[in-house]
Amino acid sequence: MGNADYVYSTTTNVVESAHRVAVPPPQPFLKSLASSLKETFFPDDPLRQFKNKPPSRKLVLGLQYFMPILEWGPRYSLEFLKADLIAGITIASLAIPQGISYAKLANLPPILGLYSSFVPPLVYAVMGSSRDLAVGTVAVASLLTASMLGDEVNAKENPTLYLHLAFTATFFAGAFQASLGILRLGFIVDFLSHATIVGFMAGAATVVCLQQLKGILGLEHFTHGTDLVSVMRSVFTQTHKWRWESAVLGCCFLFFLLLARFFNKRRPKLFWISALAPLTLVILGSLLVYLTHAEKHGIHVQVIGELKKGLNPLSITDLAFGSQYLPTTIKTGIITGVIALAEGIAVGRSFAMYKNYQIDGNKEMIAFGMMNIVGSFTSCYLTTGPFSRSAVNFNAGCKTAVSNIVMAVAVMITLLFLTPLFHYTPLVVLSSIIIVAMLGLIDYEAAIHLWHVDKFDFTVCMSAYIGVVFGSVEIGLVIAVVLSVVRVLLFVTRPRILALGNIPNSMIFRSVDQYPNANLVPGILILEINAPIYFTNSSYLRERISRWIDEEEDKLKSSGETSLQYVILDMGAVGNIDTSGISVLEELKNSTERKGLKLVLANPGGEVMKKLNKSKIIESIGQEWIYITVGEAVGACNFMLHTFKPKPMTVNGSETWSDNV
Amino acid sequence: MGNADYVYSTTTNVVESAHRVAVPPPQPFLKSLASSLKETFFPDDPLRQFKNKPPSRKLVLGLQYFMPILEWGPRYSLEFLKADLIAGITIASLAIPQGISYAKLANLPPILGLYSSFVPPLVYAVMGSSRDLAVGTVAVASLLTASMLGDEVNAKENPTLYLHLAFTATFFAGAFQASLGILRLGFIVDFLSHATIVGFMAGAATVVCLQQLKGILGLEHFTHGTDLVSVMRSVFTQTHKWRWESAVLGCCFLFFLLLARFFNKRRPKLFWISALAPLTLVILGSLLVYLTHAEKHGIHVQVIGELKKGLNPLSITDLAFGSQYLPTTIKTGIITGVIALAEGIAVGRSFAMYKNYQIDGNKEMIAFGMMNIVGSFTSCYLTTGPFSRSAVNFNAGCKTAVSNIVMAVAVMITLLFLTPLFHYTPLVVLSSIIIVAMLGLIDYEAAIHLWHVDKFDFTVCMSAYIGVVFGSVEIGLVIAVVLSVVRVLLFVTRPRILALGNIPNSMIFRSVDQYPNANLVPGILILEINAPIYFTNSSYLRERISRWIDEEEDKLKSSGETSLQYVILDMGAVGNIDTSGISVLEELKNSTERKGLKLVLANPGGEVMKKLNKSKIIESIGQEWIYITVGEAVGACNFMLHTFKPKPMTVNGSETWSDNV
Repeated sequence: MGNADYVYSTTTNVVESAHRVAVPPPQPFLKSLASSLKETFFPDDPLRQFKNKPPSRKLVLGLQYFMPILEWGPRYSLEFLKADLIAGITIASLAIPQGISYAKLANLPPILGLYSSFVPPLVYAVMGSSRDLAVGTVAVASLLTASMLGDEVNAKENPTLYLHLAFTATFFAGAFQASLGILRLGFIVDFLSHATIVGFMAGAATVVCLQQLKGILGLEHFTHGTDLVSVMRSVFTQTHKWRWESAVLGCCFLFFLLLARFFNKRRPKLFWISALAPLTLVILGSLLVYLTHAEKHGIHVQVIGELKKGLNPLSITDLAFGSQYLPTTIKTGIITGVIALAEGIAVGRSFAMYKNYQIDGNKEMIAFGMMNIVGSFTSCYLTTGPFSRSAVNFNAGCKTAVSNIVMAVAVMITLLFLTPLFHYTPLVVLSSIIIVAMLGLIDYEAAIHLWHVDKFDFTVCMSAYIGVVFGSVEIGLVIAVVLSVVRVLLFVTRPRILALGNIPNSMIFRSVDQYPNANLVPGILILEINAPIYFTNSSYLRERISRWIDEEEDKLKSSGETSLQYVILDMGAVGNIDTSGISVLEELKNSTERKGLKLVLANPGGEVMKKLNKSKIIESIGQEWIYITVGEAVGACNFMLHTFKPKPMTVNGSETWSDNV
Repeated sequence: MGNADYVYSTTTNVVESAHRVAVPPPQPFLKSLASSLKETFFPDDPLRQFKNKPPSRKLVLGLQYFMPILEWGPRYSLEFLKADLIAGITIASLAIPQGISYAKLANLPPILGLYSSFVPPLVYAVMGSSRDLAVGTVAVASLLTASMLGDEVNAKENPTLYLHLAFTATFFAGAFQASLGILRLGFIVDFLSHATIVGFMAGAATVVCLQQLKGILGLEHFTHGTDLVSVMRSVFTQTHKWRWESAVLGCCFLFFLLLARFFNKRRPKLFWISALAPLTLVILGSLLVYLTHAEKHGIHVQVIGELKKGLNPLSITDLAFGSQYLPTTIKTGIITGVIALAEGIAVGRSFAMYKNYQIDGNKEMIAFGMMNIVGSFTSCYLTTGPFSRSAVNFNAGCKTAVSNIVMAVAVMITLLFLTPLFHYTPLVVLSSIIIVAMLGLIDYEAAIHLWHVDKFDFTVCMSAYIGVVFGSVEIGLVIAVVLSVVRVLLFVTRPRILALGNIPNSMIFRSVDQYPNANLVPGILILEINAPIYFTNSSYLRERISRWIDEEEDKLKSSGETSLQYVILDMGAVGNIDTSGISVLEELKNSTERKGLKLVLANPGGEVMKKLNKSKIIESIGQEWIYITVGEAVGACNFMLHTFKPKPMTVNGSETWSDNV
C-alpha cells in the first residue's frame, strides 16, 4: 500500500489500522471506587497540605483549617488595620439602619437587627475564609422567615412564641449549613443555577418592595399574603386609610436615597455617599420628627419606639425544640439556610476570584453554620454575607475579615450607648431604605443577557420570578429548581445526534449542521452521539438511529445513488454507558445486520471501552471494526467499498496517504 | 512553510489555521424551538405517513392509527388463523388458573381473574400494535393493589367497597396510561431503567412468594405487612396452626410444577408442557379433593368455592368517584398503571425488535389505557401484557393479536359453562402456581451480569430489591427511581476531565489514562471535558481545572522542565453549555491570563459555538485561538513555542506536515 499505517489482511478480509483502540488498564474495584468518591466529595483535595508533616504541625494545620484567623492573624499589620478600620466603620453605618429595617421586615423586634450585626460577624471573623465578605442579615431571608413562620404563628398576637421560633429556625439553618459543610455536600448548592438565583432574587425583591407599601402608606391592616394580587387588593381597597404624611415623607426619603444611588453609579469613587446615606436619613428623619414634635400637631407618624440598651441576651433557653410548630420551624430553617448559603458562597467566591485567592466552599459552609448556631444562642436571627454590604466593604478597601470585627465593635457601641437615638426614627425611613436596597437586587440586565444567550435559562429565570411574585416564595423556588433539573435531565434524555461529513481537503469529519461545506460520504452514514448513553435515552437513541438509517436508505433508493453499506457511530462524545446503553448497541448491531449493513464504532472513550469489554460486545461487533478516529474508520470502509483503491489526499500536488485523527 | 494549510501572519503574530471553526448558520428562534419540541415529543415522526394524501385517505389512516385492527384485519389469512388458534388456546390454558390465582392475590373475588382475561384482550386486539403480546393480569400489580388499597380498606370486612375501589383504581390507571400516550409523554416510562426493573420485579416476586406461605401452610390469620420480617414473624409465631394437609399437598403441587418448568428449560420445544401444567394441576387438584371427599374425613382443605356463571357484569355504576378514599385510589391507580405500562411496553418492544417490526410506544400506551378504562366498566381489574404469557404466546407460534381473541373466546366459554369445575379446586394449587410463576421473575442471571458490567447499576438493582423485601413495594420503587436519577445527575455534576497526550507517530491526541503510551506535550496542558458545562458542574469544573493547572505548574517547577505556556480545552465532548458555563469559561480565561498562560479552545460543537458567539466570549478569547481539532491547536502552540520550527511527522522516511484532525 505504500503506507506502513494500514495493513490489509487477506485472512480476515479487513483493513487493520495501526492504532488499536485500547481498553484502559483494569483498576481494582476498590481503588476506582475510592478515586470516584474522592473526586465527588473532595475535588479540591483539602488534605493535600497535610501530607508529609510532623504530628504537631498537623494539629496546628487542623486548628487553622477550622479557624483561619489563627493563620492570617499572626501576619496582621498596622496597614491592614487602617484599611479595615475605614471599611468596618463604613459597613457599620450601613449595618445599623439595614439591620433595624430587615428585622422589622421579619416581624421581629428591631433591636434583633443590631444584635445580629454584633455576634455573627465576630464568629465569621474567626472561622471564615473570605477577606471581603461582610456579615449581616438579608431582606430575602427575613421575608421568608416572616412568611413561613407567619403562616403558623401571628407575630402580633404571639410575639414571644414567634421570637423563639425564629431563634429555633436560625439554629436549624445553622445546623443544616454546618452539616452540609462537614459532609462535603456543598455541591448541592450548585443546583441553584445563576438564572434561578437572578429570577428568584428579583422576585423576592419585588415582593419585599410591595410589602413596604404598608409602611409608606401608613396602613394598619395589611394582607398576610405576599403575592402581587393580594397586596394590590389590600392597598386599593383601603385608599381612604392612606396617610398622606407617611406617603409624602416616604417619597422624599426615597428620592434622597435614589439620588445618592445615582451619584454612586455615575462616580463609583464616591461609593461612600450611598453607603452613608441610610444612616444620614435615619438621623435626619429622627431629627425631623423630634423637632417638629409631630404628634402634637395631630400628624401621626409611626416611629420605631423604645430600643433596649445593652448587648445580646442569651437565648439558649428560648429555643423551642418541643414546640408543636417544630416541623415548620425546621422547614423554615432549612430553606432560609440554603438560600442564605447560596448567596454567601457566591459572594465569597466572586471576590476570591477577583482578588485571586482560594476559598474552600465546604469550610465556608461550616463557618456560616457555626455563625448561625452561635447566633441562635445569642438572640440573633439568620445572617449571611449579603452582596451589597460585601461590595461596600470591598470598595472601602477592606483587607481581611477584621473589617467585620470593627463593624461588630461599632454596633456594640451603638447597643451600649446610642439606642436612644432611634427612638424617634419614622418607620417610613426604614421602608425607603429597604425599597432602595431591593432595587439593587432586581438585576434586569442579567435577565436581558440571559434572553440573548440562552432562552431556556431565561425561561427558568422568568418562571422563578413569576412564581415568587404571583404565587409565593416557596413556589417560585421550587419551580426554579425543578426547571433547572429538568433541563439537565432533558439533555440526557434527548441527546443530539449529528450527521458528520468530510471537511474538504482533509480527513476531518464534522457535523454538517455546523459546517455546511462538509460533504457526506457516499455509502457510509456517520452519526455522532452527543451524550452518555443511559437508560433515560437508550430507547430514544435506538429508535432515532434506526429511523435515520431507514430515511437514508429511502433517500438513496429514490435518488439512485450508492446504497448504504456502513454505519459509523462516533462515540467520542459519549462519556459513559450503562447496561441499557449496552443493550442498545447490541440491538443496533443486530438490526443493522438484518438490513445488510455493518456497524462500526469510532473513538470510544475509556469508560465506554471498559463496559464494552466486560459485556463482550467487542467480540460481537468485532475488535477490528472499532477505530480510534472517524477518519480511520472511513478510510477502512472506503477500502472495502472501492476494492483497495485508497482515497488520496493532495498535499502540494503529490498523493500521500495521511494519518487520520 | 511548504504547507498551504497553515499561514503564519506577521501582523497578528499568530498562526492561522486553514480550518475556521464555524458558528452554525443562525436559525429563527421559533423554528429551532419547533424542531426541539418535535424531537422531544415526536421522535418517531408518526405523522410522516400522513403527508401528501387526499383527505379521505387521511381519515382512513387516522382511524387505522387508533385501531390497527382495521389495517391488518383485511389482510388476515387462514394460515394465520391456524397458528393463532393454537397459540390462543395455549395461553388460555395458562390464563384461567393464573387469572384466578392473581385475583386471590389481590384479595378480589377469583372470578375477576376470568373477567379480566375476557374483555381487555378483546380491546387490545382492536387497538394494540404488538403481534405477540398476550393480555392478562399480573402478580406484581395484584400485590400492589392489595397492599395499597388494603392499607385503607380491609378486604374481608368490606368486600364490596374494596371491590369498587379496585375498579376505580383500574379506571384511573387506564386514564393515566391513555393520557401519557396522548400527550406523548411516553419517555417518562424510560426513567425506570433495566436495573431498576430487575431489582424491583425480583423483590416483588419474593414478596408474593412470601405471601403464599399463608395458603401453603393453611393459616387463617396473616400479617398485613408485606416485608420479610413481618411475614416471618407471622409464620413462626403460629407454628402450631400450620396445617399439614395443605403443606403436603402444596409441596407435591410445587414439585410437579417445578418439574414441568425444568423440562421446559431442557427442551424448549416442549414449552407447552409447562404451559398446560397449571391447568392440569387445577383439574387434578379438584379431582383429588372431590373424589376423596376430603372434608368428610376431617381433613380440612380450603377450596375456591362457588364461582358465578355468566359473563362480565357492568360495573360503571360501581366506580367510587365520591369516596373518601379517592386520593388513595388515584395513587394506587397511577403507581400500578405506570408499572404495568413499563412491563407492557418493554414486552411489546422486545418482541417487535426480535421479529423486526415497529411499535409506536405512545400508541401502545393509548391501547393499554383504553383496555383498562373499558375493563373498569366491565368488572375487570388492572391488566397489561405480562412477559411470561407473551413468551408462551410467541413460542406457540402466534401471528397476530387474534391469539388474544381466541383466548378471550376460550375464557368466555369457561365463564358460561365451565365454572363449576373450579368448585373443589384447593387454594394450595393456586399458591403453587403463583410461586412457580414468580420464580421466573427472579432474574438472578441479569443481576450477576449487572455486577460484572456496571456496579452502580448493580447497586440500584439491589437497593430496589432490598427496599421492596424489607420495606414495602412503594419504598423499593421510590428508592430505585431516585438512585437512577441521581446517577444521571452525578454524571453531569462531576464530569470527567482527562489529560490528553500525543499518540506517537501521529497527530492524534487521546487520554493518557486510556492510552498509556500517549506522551504529554511539553509546555502545553491539554484537558478534555466529557460532559455539557451546566450550572450543576460549572463551579466544580472551574476549581478542578484551576487546581490541575496549579499542580502541573508545581510539578514542572520542581522537575525543572519547560514551564506551562498554553492550556488547551478539548470541547469536542461538551454537548451544550449554559450561562453558568459561559461564566466559567470567562473566569478560566481571566485566571489563566493572570498566571501568564494562554487559554485555547479546540473543537467546540455547534450549540457551544452559538452560545460563545452570543455571549461575546469569542472576542474575549480571540477567534484565532479557537481551533477545529486538538492537533491544529497543538501545532499552532508548538509554532509559537519553538519559534516557527514545525513538528515534523515521519511518513516513509520523508518529513511531511500532515493535516490534523
